Formats: sequence, structure tokens, C-alpha cells
Amino acid sequence: MFQTLLIAALGSPALAGGPGTEVYVALRDSSALAVYDFADRELAPEQISGLGDLRHAIMAFSQDLRWGYVATRSGLLSRVDLARKVVDASVQTSENSIDIAISQDGRSIAVAEYEPGGLTILDAETLEITRRLPADNSRVTGVVDAPGGRFVCVQMEAAEIWIVGPDGPTRDGSRGDGWVIEHRIPTPRDLPYDAMITPDGRYYLVGHIGSEFVSVVDLTHPEEGAGTISLVDPDATFEREVPVKLPHMASWAVAGGGVYVPLVGEKRLVVLEPGTWEYQGSIPVRGHPVYAVRSPTDQEIWVSFSGEGDDAWIDVIDTQRREVIRSIEVGRRIYHMDFTPRGAYALVSANGDDALALIDATTYAVVDRQTLPSPSGIFGLWRAYRIGL
Amino acid sequence: MFQTLLIAALGSPALAGGPGTEVYVALRDSSALAVYDFADRELAPEQISGLGDLRHAIMAFSQDLRWGYVATRSGLLSRVDLARKVVDASVQTSENSIDIAISQDGRSIAVAEYEPGGLTILDAETLEITRRLPADNSRVTGVVDAPGGRFVCVQMEAAEIWIVGPDGPTRDGSRGDGWVIEHRIPTPRDLPYDAMITPDGRYYLVGHIGSEFVSVVDLTHPEEGAGTISLVDPDATFEREVPVKLPHMASWAVAGGGVYVPLVGEKRLVVLEPGTWEYQGSIPVRGHPVYAVRSPTDQEIWVSFSGEGDDAWIDVIDTQRREVIRSIEVGRRIYHMDFTPRGAYALVSANGDDALALIDATTYAVVDRQTLPSPSGIFGLWRAYRIGL
Repeated sequence: MFQTLLIAALGSPALAGGPGTEVYVALRDSSALAVYDFADRELAPEQISGLGDLRHAIMAFSQDLRWGYVATRSGLLSRVDLARKVVDASVQTSENSIDIAISQDGRSIAVAEYEPGGLTILDAETLEITRRLPADNSRVTGVVDAPGGRFVCVQMEAAEIWIVGPDGPTRDGSRGDGWVIEHRIPTPRDLPYDAMITPDGRYYLVGHIGSEFVSVVDLTHPEEGAGTISLVDPDATFEREVPVKLPHMASWAVAGGGVYVPLVGEKRLVVLEPGTWEYQGSIPVRGHPVYAVRSPTDQEIWVSFSGEGDDAWIDVIDTQRREVIRSIEVGRRIYHMDFTPRGAYALVSANGDDALALIDATTYAVVDRQTLPSPSGIFGLWRAYRIGL
Repeated sequence: MFQTLLIAALGSPALAGGPGTEVYVALRDSSALAVYDFADRELAPEQISGLGDLRHAIMAFSQDLRWGYVATRSGLLSRVDLARKVVDASVQTSENSIDIAISQDGRSIAVAEYEPGGLTILDAETLEITRRLPADNSRVTGVVDAPGGRFVCVQMEAAEIWIVGPDGPTRDGSRGDGWVIEHRIPTPRDLPYDAMITPDGRYYLVGHIGSEFVSVVDLTHPEEGAGTISLVDPDATFEREVPVKLPHMASWAVAGGGVYVPLVGEKRLVVLEPGTWEYQGSIPVRGHPVYAVRSPTDQEIWVSFSGEGDDAWIDVIDTQRREVIRSIEVGRRIYHMDFTPRGAYALVSANGDDALALIDATTYAVVDRQTLPSPSGIFGLWRAYRIGL
């Protein structure tokens, strides 16, 4: 059941450019990845298929840029050979996996499992399972890499954050020293359902279902336990019609002087102060926000929406003025947005229109549009070089 | 004199790993680059040679990760094929070049020239010169890429900052629309000698020879002109024995809540508040600091020194405690330090001991050491994905 499958296949490197401008696009309905080069503005003719159920799938990349890793709801972890554009190896780590992370040194992969619940750590080179850390009758989610060669994840039903580190004096989890749970930190509230780490790897933030409060751990002071962040507007006296829910935590955007949090059920984003998490204000937007994505320039936050009439649009927030300065129509059901690494372009998937769009981030013009069946997540190689991605 | 030389050569890809963990090390005395893979901890057996005078040479990378670009004091711009590890093409842009930048969209290269002074812009693909912007009897330095597809540079004798942008409605400088000087901003003081841009691409900072004041332009408000940042301790009443001079501006480290500035002639770093540039305090260190480098985790600043007895050491500053927490002996005349992108390791060149060292950033152990003749700058592919590098 859990054996490693090594698949020998000859790839077809069909794009003319180099690997650095290629992005991998998850196609939800076909268990496949498409490859798009945003410099050449071309799709590779062949897709990488047989990956399993790609709902909410995240792709992690090795720092040497040889491999991409995808964990799936089918419990299948696949490794993609980035030069040949084929699945190089795969391993069944569980019945149902939800999240994946690669260690700071690139030598280990961690997979957060729903069924059976736990954290599975593998050698990134051989794909052998180094360590299984079963959860206490709980699903595990929100796994990220953290400084010190660690992984952090959260137990959903058990309401506990784990900080997991390599054991032994060399702190090298790939070298047989093993992995230990260094800290078990109860969350102040129950039903944690998603988590993120700030781009500097310092704070781990956990959302709770149906709650206006978020748990936070300062990973440089884990002994202090988890604190609480409030998303409640201190000046609001009105009754809310819709209870505040949180979308995926990965939707929080940390930009310069603010943390931008989309609130489900309200047509606004809350802005918190990074580190102190104090409420700084809120910004009205056109609809119910889903994702907030920071431009690498820190000057703009791009926001996507749920609901017909809004979900084809992106609101652009200016971070100095803290207001919407532009709306861009891209295509129905925007599922994912990401900027190219120096901020020249944004890549957007419009699932409802089977479209992948390339937008010039200076002129806001859609400069390329490709047809792809049911596109979802968009993953660029620069993720290899960023904490938490 | 200024023709393009296309050099046909077969490369020898000698390292087993992928390209993402390879770094290029400038060897000052041999006009060559060595290639080191920090994952495999191996040097490539062959070097890339014939690059010209590599004093202060900086290497820029294309976002597709096909090419590296090196401008030299010999005025020779070389393009390195990163897959084959050979010089793919070169062009003589001047008699003496000092600095290089690649545009936000990766399509253009800008070279800052000393002789004759000016900014030369080339097509990154063909290496054809797109535009020459001659300076007014002045050397040009400190060229960086900036948001909006721009370049920014400074005229030394003319004491003027240039913001250069692609002309025409598509703002695509590689497509024949040309380039224009959008803003000419006089610096409040004379003798600017070096510059940097903050990692978000917002502020351009210019150092002046022998001055305790730095010029700053907010690139989102260029019409406001250049302001002044003071490095003078507001509480200091003592006479200084040594006038304050600045090392290279690239030595400033922007980490979370502080900007760390090494002061030449004093055994301390000044800490400024990002954006307001207010003096927050200073941190004593073991010697005369030269470079301050931020860990990707924002938790540490590593500082190198000039002067025998100090120049083999790195002081590690904890950014929360704002004090030195560790000193590491690496080797004589440390010329360059850089962290691997998620912060697991630091790469350090010790020119006086002909050594390249790999340091575990968690345990502070030197985990690998290679012998290389006269090593200087160390350039990793992650530079392709960062504003200002």
C-alpha cells in the first residue's frame, strides 16, 4: 500500500525558454498539471497526469529546482521531474492528504494527513518515509516549514499545534537522527481548520471555524504558548447579519505595515498591525472577499471574491491609500492569483471560464489568455526559495 | 569595438544536482567564476573564465534561469549559459562598467558605466544595445531595477538621480518603444558614490563620500524629490576621531522593524526605522563593520569586518535583543556573505584564506569548506526572483 513507485518515462521538454518562468497549473477535473511559460506566453503541449484528486492541492519545489512535490486528497504524493515534465516517483502516504511542506534545507518533505490523521515525513531524495507522527484521533492540516529546520502543523479535532524538529546534534532529519515533536501547544479555541506562517517564518496563525478569533504562536518563543488575535472591529456597534467566517488562512496578505485579512460574510478586509496584531481599520470592497494577495512591491493587494457578479473581478487595493483604486474583470470564478517574483505580472486562474490569464501589473491589461480545463492553483518555481511555500 | 561576440562552446555540466542550489563565486585574480552546489557540497571541476576585471562585479540572473549576466571594470558584459556553464555571448558596452541590473520583466539589462559615463540598456535576449543614455561628464553607478519596469541610477559627479522608464503605451522597453529619463532628481549633497533600493522597490538610498547624511527618494512619489537621512546619533555629544564614512550601500540590511547600517570608522551599527528613517539606536560590534546581511528569517543580522584581527570573524546580531549573541571565525578577509533562500545556511568567502565556507545557520558550524583562489562575490539563482538584485 505504501510502497514507492518509480516510473521510468522520457519527458518532452517542449517549451523553448528556461525553467524559471514556467508555472504549474493544477487542473482539478483531470488530475493533471499544465505547464505555462509566462515569458514565452505558451502552454506546453503535454500535461502531467495521473496525480490523484487535486482539490486544494499545493505544490512544493526542491531548492535545487529538480523536483516539484504534490500531495493529494487521494493520499498519493507525486514527485514531478521539472526538467522532463513527468512524474518521476510517487508514494501512497495515506488515504487522504491535505497539505505539504519542504524543509528549510530541502532534504525532507512533510505531508499533513486527514486519514489516518498525522504528519508523515519523507526523505526528499529517495521518497522513503523517515517518520510517521500519528495524531490523536484527529485530522492534521496547515503544515509549513519553519526556521531551525522545523515543521509546524495543527491537529484539527485535538486543537493542538505541533512544532516538529529534527532530533540529534546535527539537526539533520534526513540523516537518520529522526524527528521529534518539540512542542505541543493547545489552541485557545477549538476547531482549528487552517493555518499559515508569516513570510519571515516567525508567526504561525491558526483559523478556527466560525470564530472571529485567530490563534497565534511566536515561533521564537514557543514556551509562551498560543495567543489570540481579534478580527472584531473595536468601533463597530452594529449587529452582524452573517456570522464572521474565515476563508483559507493562506489568503492573508502581509504587506509592509499591514496584514490584510478577507472576512467571509462581509464586504471588507480587516487590516491588522504585523506583530502586535492590533486592529488598524477595514477597507470596503465590491463583494465577499476570498483571497488577498500582496504584490512583491508591497504597493498593492489584489482581492478575489465569491458569488456571481463579483467572482470574475479583482479589486486592487493601494496599500498607501488603503482603498480600492481599480477593478479588473478577468473571468468567472477566480480560484487563484499569484504575482511573478519581481511583480511585473500577475497570473490568475478563472475556473468558471476555463481560463488562465497573464495580467500586466503596471498597466492592468490582460496581456495573455490561455484555455485550460478547470484551472485552479498556480505554482511557480520561486516557491522553492520562500519560507512557508 | 562594441560588437557582440557569440562564442560557440560545449559545456560540461559536471554537478549532479539541479541548478537551484548552484552559486557562482567571482574569483577576482583570475577573471573567472567558480560554481559551487551547496546541496551536494561540491565544486564544479571547471570554471567559467575570460570575464574581465571582476573587482566589485555583480551578477544578475534572468527570471527564466537560463542566463547570468556579469558587467566588469573592463567594460565587458558577459552572458553565462547556466545549464552549460559557459560564456554564451559577450559585448563591450564601455571602457569601464561598475554595475548591472535586470528589468522587472526580465527583458532588458542596464549597465552603469564609468568610462564613458552613462547608462547602457540592452535587450536581454539578443544583447543588442537598445538605448544609450550618456551622463553629463559624470560616472554612473548604483543601477537597480524598480517597479513599473523602471531602472534607477545615480550620476556621481553630476549629483543627480535618474529614474529611467520604458517609453510608449505598452511600456515594453525591449519592443522598440525605447527608454526615457522620466525624472532627474538632484541629490541634496554632492559626491554620491553608491546606492541601493529597499527589497520592496520603494526607496532608493544614495550614500555620499565622507558624509553622515544619505539621500533618499520615495519612488512612489518621485515628484517630492530627494530627502535626507541622518546617521548622526542624536544623543552623542562626543567628538569623533574618525570622520564617518559609509561602506557600500548594498551593506545595509533591512530586517523587519529596523534598517541596520554599518558605520565605517566606528565599531557599531546604527539602526534606523524603515520608512521614517528615524534613529532608533546603535549596536556595538567587535570591530569596524563592513557588511550587514539579513537572514531570511529576519531573526539575525550577520556582520563582517575590516582590519586584521577582526576580518576573519562574523558577529551575529539578534534582531529582537539588538545585541551580538555569537561570533563565528571563518577565515581571513571575509568579502561576501549570503544566506541560502530559506535561511538554512550562509555562504561566506574568506579571500585572505582562499576559502569558501558553508555555515549551518542553526548550529553556526562550518559544515563545508572549499579552497578557491581569491574568492569574492557569491551569487545564487534566487537573485533572479528579487527586486534590486
